[in-house]
Amino acid sequence: MSLEKFFNAIDANQDIYVQRLKEIVAIKSISGEPECRADTIFMGEWFLAELERLGASTKRVEPGTQEIGGRTLPLPPVVLATYGTDPLKKTVLVYGHYDVQPALKEDGWTTDPFTLTEDKEGRLIGRGSTDDKGPVLGWLCAIEAHQQIGLELPVNVKFCFEGMEESGSEGLDAVIVQEAQAYFKDVDCVCISDNYWLGKTKPCLTYGLRGVSYFMVSVKGPAADLHSGVFGGTVHEPMTDLVQLFSKLVDSQGRILIPGIMDQVAPLTDEERKLYDGLEFDTADLRAALGTETEIHDNSIDSLMHRMRYPSLSIHGIEGAFYAPGSKTVIPSNPIGKFSIRSVPNMDPARVTELVKAFLDAEFEKLGTKNTLEVSCDHAGRPWFSSPNHWNFVAGARAVESVYQLKPDLTREGGSIPVTLTFQEALDKNVLLLPMGACDDGAHSINEKVDRRNFVEGIKMFGSYFHELAKVVME
Amino acid sequence: MSLEKFFNAIDANQDIYVQRLKEIVAIKSISGEPECRADTIFMGEWFLAELERLGASTKRVEPGTQEIGGRTLPLPPVVLATYGTDPLKKTVLVYGHYDVQPALKEDGWTTDPFTLTEDKEGRLIGRGSTDDKGPVLGWLCAIEAHQQIGLELPVNVKFCFEGMEESGSEGLDAVIVQEAQAYFKDVDCVCISDNYWLGKTKPCLTYGLRGVSYFMVSVKGPAADLHSGVFGGTVHEPMTDLVQLFSKLVDSQGRILIPGIMDQVAPLTDEERKLYDGLEFDTADLRAALGTETEIHDNSIDSLMHRMRYPSLSIHGIEGAFYAPGSKTVIPSNPIGKFSIRSVPNMDPARVTELVKAFLDAEFEKLGTKNTLEVSCDHAGRPWFSSPNHWNFVAGARAVESVYQLKPDLTREGGSIPVTLTFQEALDKNVLLLPMGACDDGAHSINEKVDRRNFVEGIKMFGSYFHELAKVVME
Repeated sequence: MSLEKFFNAIDANQDIYVQRLKEIVAIKSISGEPECRADTIFMGEWFLAELERLGASTKRVEPGTQEIGGRTLPLPPVVLATYGTDPLKKTVLVYGHYDVQPALKEDGWTTDPFTLTEDKEGRLIGRGSTDDKGPVLGWLCAIEAHQQIGLELPVNVKFCFEGMEESGSEGLDAVIVQEAQAYFKDVDCVCISDNYWLGKTKPCLTYGLRGVSYFMVSVKGPAADLHSGVFGGTVHEPMTDLVQLFSKLVDSQGRILIPGIMDQVAPLTDEERKLYDGLEFDTADLRAALGTETEIHDNSIDSLMHRMRYPSLSIHGIEGAFYAPGSKTVIPSNPIGKFSIRSVPNMDPARVTELVKAFLDAEFEKLGTKNTLEVSCDHAGRPWFSSPNHWNFVAGARAVESVYQLKPDLTREGGSIPVTLTFQEALDKNVLLLPMGACDDGAHSINEKVDRRNFVEGIKMFGSYFHELAKVVME
Repeated sequence: MSLEKFFNAIDANQDIYVQRLKEIVAIKSISGEPECRADTIFMGEWFLAELERLGASTKRVEPGTQEIGGRTLPLPPVVLATYGTDPLKKTVLVYGHYDVQPALKEDGWTTDPFTLTEDKEGRLIGRGSTDDKGPVLGWLCAIEAHQQIGLELPVNVKFCFEGMEESGSEGLDAVIVQEAQAYFKDVDCVCISDNYWLGKTKPCLTYGLRGVSYFMVSVKGPAADLHSGVFGGTVHEPMTDLVQLFSKLVDSQGRILIPGIMDQVAPLTDEERKLYDGLEFDTADLRAALGTETEIHDNSIDSLMHRMRYPSLSIHGIEGAFYAPGSKTVIPSNPIGKFSIRSVPNMDPARVTELVKAFLDAEFEKLGTKNTLEVSCDHAGRPWFSSPNHWNFVAGARAVESVYQLKPDLTREGGSIPVTLTFQEALDKNVLLLPMGACDDGAHSINEKVDRRNFVEGIKMFGSYFHELAKVVME
């Protein structure tokens, strides 16, 4: 069977792939930090060059500019590429992102976050290793291995790599809508590898994602920060107001307290309820991922449902207050609190924003403060829901089986990849999420990693998926 | 009259004094930042050298070490000096501090915080300009001017300059207690210039200060920061718990909600109430200092009382949460919230800590979270209260009149200089606070400044105080 040779080639080349991943982890493509914009753009250019080296035709799309911190910055390029144009083959669109979350050694990383480091357990540790540079690179490695062993790729592949995913995919939707009937015209299905297995050992296919609405809550008081000795007791303190507002959002059991939010959640059907019984996940897995026993729910089904099909609200932090170690007796003049709501069917972002603003305005009014409040939705992405019975999923499941000898779990994810929905709607094609990484990879947190096994077997899985796609009957 | 020549010398030398202030503002003696410890020690050494240049005998006292951020650091030296030992003269002890609050250009400073910059209005802008490098330097300039015009100093002066005031004066109390009957044995009274006028034009003498108790509230949840998409809804979030706790501390009208705190406050007497009628201060002054109309109280007397004789509670910020501009979808694993309580007679720090801990523990219990709480008092200083009828205050008032042709206000201050109380108790001598700076100097905030006028006239006032002290009758 031809794929054995392909699999062997992947195994033989794995150190080269890891070295390549190390090279790109070192590029600080943090889309949320203005000072890293040049690096982020460079990261896009790196992928353009790599795709051309592999023989793809490429198209660099400039999605415009962004206003951030009083500056106007060019958005990183959307990298489009076409590999193969055979009208007799199916065409799959592969999406990924080359930007990453912020990371500082002092946040608690055991190694430098931008130096990919392999530990004794074979964990490849570095920012972007699993989210999403490893998977994006993996697709290209799969194609390179085909070339090396002289194996023809049985499908045409379109690539779409963006550099703003961690910052609301700004500019991307317009590009997708514009190219839907142009560059993406012949696409038959879409595949994205930007999420994670439920556990550490069993792969999954994902057919749903939560959306996210990210809010900035700015309370303005005095013109500048004040000394708490001189002014404490005489001035309405913005931090006091902000903390009062934030205490009304969610309780310690994770229940969202904003009126109207929970009313929008699609009711649980018996059929849906049954889907959860087969999933390989228990509370021990959650505890292992947490590193503590601080789970809310006393059973794994509830934990999974609250990750997959119920909304959640997280408070991320406060900009403009004292954040360093040690003590500072400051009255912050304009703290900006940040929180986000993970949304699920049938929540609508516009309605969520409306409810949040109305609620916070009303609660602020009750405080009787002379400070001023400004609530804004920084970015919002709707939840996404797909059909796990589609031939695209059948091909994905077979690819998993050919590499891992396991039937994948069918899951929904708690995270948000808003572009998933955009692709589904703009192209009217099925979207499959085919994760490479495991549940404990720590995307967005310190010591983000991808296991060498997941990276290497994932490349095989991507290659196998191309072949299964070619074989499966389009219905 | 001999002081006219002295005053003229100060006027003539003022540019030299400003230049010298610029030199020491540039030394980043931030006691709260471990990486600035070497600079802080150097700042102490600068004053030792300057005192020796003026002919004082000096003593460098090492107050020990400090554990901060897992490191053991030497504390900056306590600088002791003796200028004059004539047994026929009174001896005044002058205290000041050479350390400063943290400052970053990106906090919103219009100029580099460590480059003293004079604007068109004669404001000398820079960290430490008014708190407390300007006043400390001022004392030395006053002595230098005496030497230049051949005028004998009519009192002996002992100096005590520390480098940890902004970080709880760690190590200083032991030095004062130890030297009370040794180095400070002959001291007749104490003078400290480390606070501010009530307004912008009228000087004051200060006879009371609030204390401060600074609390760290650490909520520990998962072992590391988490992705809010993957874990939101399934884990007790430490930020949620922390915000709930912080919302119970104080309301938007500045009322402290911790049971038992207000019960300790000394009742207002008619006599004390009358003291407030004469003070030159109105709500317009407060608004000018705030830069907005966000005062709590509708009259200046209440504003003054809540600054001078009632406690206050300020929330300063959160360490370990997301604080940068932009968005990050993190669940912080171990946020440490920081707040402080300004205390007044008859509050006792040990009792305050006891009440705070008991209250937060009880409120945390109610949350039903599996996270863990750790509340600690980072540092505490008691409130201080002195007699404004003492001859030390009489001398101070005459010094003000000789320079400003105004009777000073008699005030209490909202800020905390815990050492004031230590001096009063360890030496059993009267302590006078004789401020140089104005109400809008912005100590601890951005664009801290001292007006050139206050700096120059303040040096004259310090010199005049020496002469009035010599003349006043000790009762």
